[in-house]
Amino acid sequence: MKKVLLMNGVNLNRLGKREPHIYGYTTLDELEERVIARGKKADIEVITFCSNFEGELVDRLHLAEDEGIDGIIFNPGAFTHYSHAIGDAVASITVPVVEVHISNIHAREAFRHHSVIAPHAAGQLCGFGLYGYEMALDYLMNREV
Amino acid sequence: MKKVLLMNGVNLNRLGKREPHIYGYTTLDELEERVIARGKKADIEVITFCSNFEGELVDRLHLAEDEGIDGIIFNPGAFTHYSHAIGDAVASITVPVVEVHISNIHAREAFRHHSVIAPHAAGQLCGFGLYGYEMALDYLMNREV
Amino acid sequence: MKKVLLMNGVNLNRLGKREPHIYGYTTLDELEERVIARGKKADIEVITFCSNFEGELVDRLHLAEDEGIDGIIFNPGAFTHYSHAIGDAVASITVPVVEVHISNIHAREAFRHHSVIAPHAAGQLCGFGLYGYEMALDYLMNREV
Amino acid sequence: MKKVLLMNGVNLNRLGKREPHIYGYTTLDELEERVIARGKKADIEVITFCSNFEGELVDRLHLAEDEGIDGIIFNPGAFTHYSHAIGDAVASITVPVVEVHISNIHAREAFRHHSVIAPHAAGQLCGFGLYGYEMALDYLMNREV
Amino acid sequence: MKKVLLMNGVNLNRLGKREPHIYGYTTLDELEERVIARGKKADIEVITFCSNFEGELVDRLHLAEDEGIDGIIFNPGAFTHYSHAIGDAVASITVPVVEVHISNIHAREAFRHHSVIAPHAAGQLCGFGLYGYEMALDYLMNREV
Amino acid sequence: MKKVLLMNGVNLNRLGKREPHIYGYTTLDELEERVIARGKKADIEVITFCSNFEGELVDRLHLAEDEGIDGIIFNPGAFTHYSHAIGDAVASITVPVVEVHISNIHAREAFRHHSVIAPHAAGQLCGFGLYGYEMALDYLMNREV
Amino acid sequence: MKKVLLMNGVNLNRLGKREPHIYGYTTLDELEERVIARGKKADIEVITFCSNFEGELVDRLHLAEDEGIDGIIFNPGAFTHYSHAIGDAVASITVPVVEVHISNIHAREAFRHHSVIAPHAAGQLCGFGLYGYEMALDYLMNREV
Amino acid sequence: MKKVLLMNGVNLNRLGKREPHIYGYTTLDELEERVIARGKKADIEVITFCSNFEGELVDRLHLAEDEGIDGIIFNPGAFTHYSHAIGDAVASITVPVVEVHISNIHAREAFRHHSVIAPHAAGQLCGFGLYGYEMALDYLMNREV
Amino acid sequence: MKKVLLMNGVNLNRLGKREPHIYGYTTLDELEERVIARGKKADIEVITFCSNFEGELVDRLHLAEDEGIDGIIFNPGAFTHYSHAIGDAVASITVPVVEVHISNIHAREAFRHHSVIAPHAAGQLCGFGLYGYEMALDYLMNREV
Amino acid sequence: MKKVLLMNGVNLNRLGKREPHIYGYTTLDELEERVIARGKKADIEVITFCSNFEGELVDRLHLAEDEGIDGIIFNPGAFTHYSHAIGDAVASITVPVVEVHISNIHAREAFRHHSVIAPHAAGQLCGFGLYGYEMALDYLMNREV
Amino acid sequence: MKKVLLMNGVNLNRLGKREPHIYGYTTLDELEERVIARGKKADIEVITFCSNFEGELVDRLHLAEDEGIDGIIFNPGAFTHYSHAIGDAVASITVPVVEVHISNIHAREAFRHHSVIAPHAAGQLCGFGLYGYEMALDYLMNREV
Amino acid sequence: MKKVLLMNGVNLNRLGKREPHIYGYTTLDELEERVIARGKKADIEVITFCSNFEGELVDRLHLAEDEGIDGIIFNPGAFTHYSHAIGDAVASITVPVVEVHISNIHAREAFRHHSVIAPHAAGQLCGFGLYGYEMALDYLMNREV
Repeated sequence: MKKVLLMNGVNLNRLGKREPHIYGYTTLDELEERVIARGKKADIEVITFCSNFEGELVDRLHLAEDEGIDGIIFNPGAFTHYSHAIGDAVASITVPVVEVHISNIHAREAFRHHSVIAPHAAGQLCGFGLYGYEMALDYLMNREV
Repeated sequence: MKKVLLMNGVNLNRLGKREPHIYGYTTLDELEERVIARGKKADIEVITFCSNFEGELVDRLHLAEDEGIDGIIFNPGAFTHYSHAIGDAVASITVPVVEVHISNIHAREAFRHHSVIAPHAAGQLCGFGLYGYEMALDYLMNREV
Repeated sequence: MKKVLLMNGVNLNRLGKREPHIYGYTTLDELEERVIARGKKADIEVITFCSNFEGELVDRLHLAEDEGIDGIIFNPGAFTHYSHAIGDAVASITVPVVEVHISNIHAREAFRHHSVIAPHAAGQLCGFGLYGYEMALDYLMNREV
Repeated sequence: MKKVLLMNGVNLNRLGKREPHIYGYTTLDELEERVIARGKKADIEVITFCSNFEGELVDRLHLAEDEGIDGIIFNPGAFTHYSHAIGDAVASITVPVVEVHISNIHAREAFRHHSVIAPHAAGQLCGFGLYGYEMALDYLMNREV
Repeated sequence: MKKVLLMNGVNLNRLGKREPHIYGYTTLDELEERVIARGKKADIEVITFCSNFEGELVDRLHLAEDEGIDGIIFNPGAFTHYSHAIGDAVASITVPVVEVHISNIHAREAFRHHSVIAPHAAGQLCGFGLYGYEMALDYLMNREV
Repeated sequence: MKKVLLMNGVNLNRLGKREPHIYGYTTLDELEERVIARGKKADIEVITFCSNFEGELVDRLHLAEDEGIDGIIFNPGAFTHYSHAIGDAVASITVPVVEVHISNIHAREAFRHHSVIAPHAAGQLCGFGLYGYEMALDYLMNREV
Repeated sequence: MKKVLLMNGVNLNRLGKREPHIYGYTTLDELEERVIARGKKADIEVITFCSNFEGELVDRLHLAEDEGIDGIIFNPGAFTHYSHAIGDAVASITVPVVEVHISNIHAREAFRHHSVIAPHAAGQLCGFGLYGYEMALDYLMNREV
Repeated sequence: MKKVLLMNGVNLNRLGKREPHIYGYTTLDELEERVIARGKKADIEVITFCSNFEGELVDRLHLAEDEGIDGIIFNPGAFTHYSHAIGDAVASITVPVVEVHISNIHAREAFRHHSVIAPHAAGQLCGFGLYGYEMALDYLMNREV
Repeated sequence: MKKVLLMNGVNLNRLGKREPHIYGYTTLDELEERVIARGKKADIEVITFCSNFEGELVDRLHLAEDEGIDGIIFNPGAFTHYSHAIGDAVASITVPVVEVHISNIHAREAFRHHSVIAPHAAGQLCGFGLYGYEMALDYLMNREV
Repeated sequence: MKKVLLMNGVNLNRLGKREPHIYGYTTLDELEERVIARGKKADIEVITFCSNFEGELVDRLHLAEDEGIDGIIFNPGAFTHYSHAIGDAVASITVPVVEVHISNIHAREAFRHHSVIAPHAAGQLCGFGLYGYEMALDYLMNREV
Repeated sequence: MKKVLLMNGVNLNRLGKREPHIYGYTTLDELEERVIARGKKADIEVITFCSNFEGELVDRLHLAEDEGIDGIIFNPGAFTHYSHAIGDAVASITVPVVEVHISNIHAREAFRHHSVIAPHAAGQLCGFGLYGYEMALDYLMNREV
Repeated sequence: MKKVLLMNGVNLNRLGKREPHIYGYTTLDELEERVIARGKKADIEVITFCSNFEGELVDRLHLAEDEGIDGIIFNPGAFTHYSHAIGDAVASITVPVVEVHISNIHAREAFRHHSVIAPHAAGQLCGFGLYGYEMALDYLMNREV
């Protein structure tokens, strides 16, 4: 494995500023640095991408397939719960996608309990805070195809 | 209070052209002028924004927080009923948001009766035609924090 | 426009005493005085009515029609969510009715998200505190038939 | 059979004035006279009662039992669809009750399709206009116990 | 009014034999004779039809339109609850149809509470036993178009 | 504890006359006497109230708060299942309310399984016959605040 | 016990031709011969009937009652899931009916999990292939009334 | 491709007479002639069939398989929405079936939005008026197996 | 008719690469060429547009109205099932829109069975593969307004 | 009455340790001692049982029947909401069972509002804290069979 | 076939004692003897097991796989309706399981109509009383793999 | 952190034998050894527990609290979807619990999409095969309290 794409979806650019009682005080930049650093130790290049546009996330997933990316760490934000467009995009590529949520979505409002993307992902994890992104990277580095 | 953002969401650029039996013959420009004028009388600067892109609306909400906007008048159009992304963006900022609908959404199709944004707004009003935007402005000028 | 009826429904006689963290410390008398005062400035007579009886509210709506009232500001309280009797009464008259809620009903229990009266009202507003009654009055003074 | 009670519920005092495209132009007085007249021909005394108060309708049902009324013709208006209180009152007496609706409730809004009173009534009829009240009287005169 | 069609649907040929605790001991022949007799007194010809075939009931409804029948008394039996085919046939003709049920369908199993035919009928009545057919005839003789 | 209010809601004035196979043969007067007697033994004054009017029950709850009543025993009858007005009234006062049902509501029709009042009550009990009222009194006498 | 009716409903005439991966390669004729043969060994006359017409199946059930048939083995095909007409016909006769399905309906599409006929049948069996018909016959020969 | 079967289901014999604001003024005969004519131009024999009987439609589908028909154009009428019997018949044959609806079923009552037949058809089209039948024929002539 | 717009929505840029067992091996370019070619034969100009952005699709629909486009062939991809924004855009213009799906959406996951756009379209077709686009073009060329 | 069984179900062994803001600081041992003590005063032997195993609770209910226990006080814990096995066990014995909950289950998560055991119990009480167990004992001592 | 396991689940140890109007007077011992006897005639060893513990039933199913049991007759009792644990255990073994219910579960409470185990069983039968167990044995002896 | 409990629930003792296309060929012993080994490297003692009994899992969770275990890795198997008893047990302790599923539960049957335990867990992960247990361990070693 060589290249992993770290994708963050809608409102995640506000990490550290947005509702810190839920999401903490670390910013997106700091989070991305952390994951890049951990990748480096294992000789993995971590590329980052963040957008509030559903269309850009779809495009980036398509591009990942064409670039030969080896794995994707993806927190879609609220798109998780209704964007069949992104769900179909994940289904349309062969790169394994790990769906990550910072908070425990099952302990929050009912609409957050259901993901329309997860059925097409390799796996899903939630509730582990920012460390969840590192767990996803760890999985992509160690998974047996 | 000094600055208020007047945001219109999807399909509202078609005001005056689109289904006038529901939305009337006034255009978006004319509407914006009206609200700006009313703001001026009270020494309020009204900034306007209109987009058919969910992502641009999310970005604009984030920016409003950073700019220190004092209040937002927001008609999200059909995004009202499914865009948890915008709902989360409203929740992620501290600027008070007033949700406005021109028509009485409770007297139309069932899907329009429910808003995924309203739980995060300061308040919601609907059915007052274009005058509803002025009522929202009036509220933002007079609210007691 | 000459005469406006300000109607409050069930439990609103307890304003100022009931759950002040939701409804504040202003009493119903004080609220009514505020709306009457605002009406006076615009040469509008504001008549008030408050009842915990569904039947009295229905009767008052009928009477308003017969009296030639020009507009009604109506907070039905919990009747909002199940009283099809009041909904039908609103539908049965031609006087425009503005439905008002002090708190943001969309941010509270699920049963409060739905109104059986709103489809028959001119419009609905919620979440603006006691100021919402003044916004309703403002609308009734300025609406274009 | 000697005495029949003709009961009309909420908003039916507005007959002839309320939405005539649905309910016609005949007033409640005229309707009651018609039913009284038809009763007279068959030596039946028809007593009338109309109220917008759920509690008064419950009380009147109880009283009918105590008075030895022989049958009740009852149009509960919108109470039909949610007043389990009236449903229980009908169940608590032994006088046969015929539920009447002027319009065809199955051809209107979904909430009108369901009656919480009908399971406890002798029978239900709807859609026959004001003539439905006479059909109900006819049934009560001719039913075989 | 000259000609009325009395139609009985599925399983009603078993009247008098089938579950007499629900439907009584009178046979279909006896019921038809009763309705014919009542029609005669008022110079109305009552034509009868009974079938267990949904298709034959649809055909008979179409034919009634072509024959210039003045009104239809129709107990569809269990087809009431799912035969949109018969519902559409009733909608496709201009002859007024009165839907009749012998028992009080609202006091039985849940699936019997809903009719897919009633929205297209002139009216519906239930719970009046066999006398309900005569009430339907009475209505068709006296209705004001 | 000094004063307890014993409130009975809709149709409970018919106790002893209404469906005795469900509710028994004891009348409301006899029930009230029993509870008053039990109260006396413990130096508790038991005040009684019974109404078929939702509005009167709401008013009585408000009054109880103002009078400084120490506890309320309340059987709302069928209002239990839909009167959010009464539910809000219970929520609006600080006097503890014990919801009582004579029959086991969970062994009856589905609509009786759900209470819109119970979430705001101190507790609920059902199925213990008239003795349930005495259990409620016992609780109010012995509860630890 | 002397006479058993073996009834097959809609699409079962296609047995052996229709989706053999679900229903196998045996034809309806061969199936009927098998059941007749097994009946013969036990001195039971097995009469067969197959139709794609709901009405013919209803008629055949009625006839079975009149003929004094001792038991019915019945695979209604897809009518199982919506034909309340057939359900009522089964309820209207006193002959015991055993509902048979070749495939395991609980392991197929959701709509096949529910039978509107089973509540009126003596019993139901599914998933035993064509042998299920013989099990049904065995039951009818051995049941204790 | 040589032979195509044009099947119309329940109430479609009334085309041109039935609700012309929905279905237009062309009769079934005229429609069939149009499709036959278009077939002729392409050397296709178009056979027609119309029935109000679910059973006859099932039988005709079976026969089509045995006759070696090359494709079926099928408007099931209201059977579309509940006849699992016809759905199973379509599934039981290998001839491709195109489901056609004259009106836009998604713009009408909710029950018309769902088809129990479409999952087993090659495709579905609706809203194109009578021209939809020709589009279906065109597809059957040009489809690549 | 002169100009037709061929619009493809989210993920359709991946045609030929994405899940070929569902969507085949033809690319979007090839598809567009096919439709353009067919248009040419009939003197129709076919303009193409494809985007993964909901906002761009809304904008393009608005523009089509302003340009005087004569008809739109539109496959919205997964937006079909939740984008009320696009549904409203289609409703807001007078150009006829034909909704096209390559696969039979009724034979796939449940969420694909429902379209929020179809109620506002002229018609919908699905399951005809890429040929469905040509059928849509054919309809737009031949429809009678 | 001589012997009463006090049964506590799943997680109730943790009383006093588990979420004391909901359940308080009294341990199960202390609770049992209290109820035993109250029983003694009235010459009632109180036997206790507590298990986290559904099967042991079922067995204990069966045994109670065989031992001739006179009444059961039962807090099933979370089994309340899904264990039809325990519900059936309660139904299978003739000993009266009083269902007890310490907290007000109607004021907590939705899944706790419904009991699958209550329909088979004599009665249910909730929200009275540990005193509820004593109320249940009181009932069992005083009930009239 | 050599060895068949006869498993009975929760509350079936009470057979003959429990609600005999539903389950009859035969005890579990007598039932087991009957099935063993019928097995003997066909040279089949029938092993019996009965438990009120979900875990023991799961363990016994696993053991059956390891012992090389040839078939399982299984009445899970109320576990049928919610124990996905047992459903998964049945799915996890290759031994064919026949699900048996003594009463007709489709003629009882709604929760009994659905089985979470049946999708994983070979087949299901219900309503045949204790004879159903013999039918299941008969099937296991005669099934063609 | 010193001690971690690795708990496996119902049917997981069959790992390696049960449906290997879903769960793979590694046995439970091998899995436990892997996790123990990984723990050792980080000076963590990993204790293992596996049971098919809901009650034993509840007891083990309670014990973990009393033993001062530092974290729990828990795959509840099918109990995940209905065992509120286990959910409450997780809620009743302060030890952090990580819910693990081997397969992607969101890509399987609908009942597996919902967890009644997750709201009380620290986090949930699924779809990562056996490696998911190691990810959970990694989290428990690195989490910041």
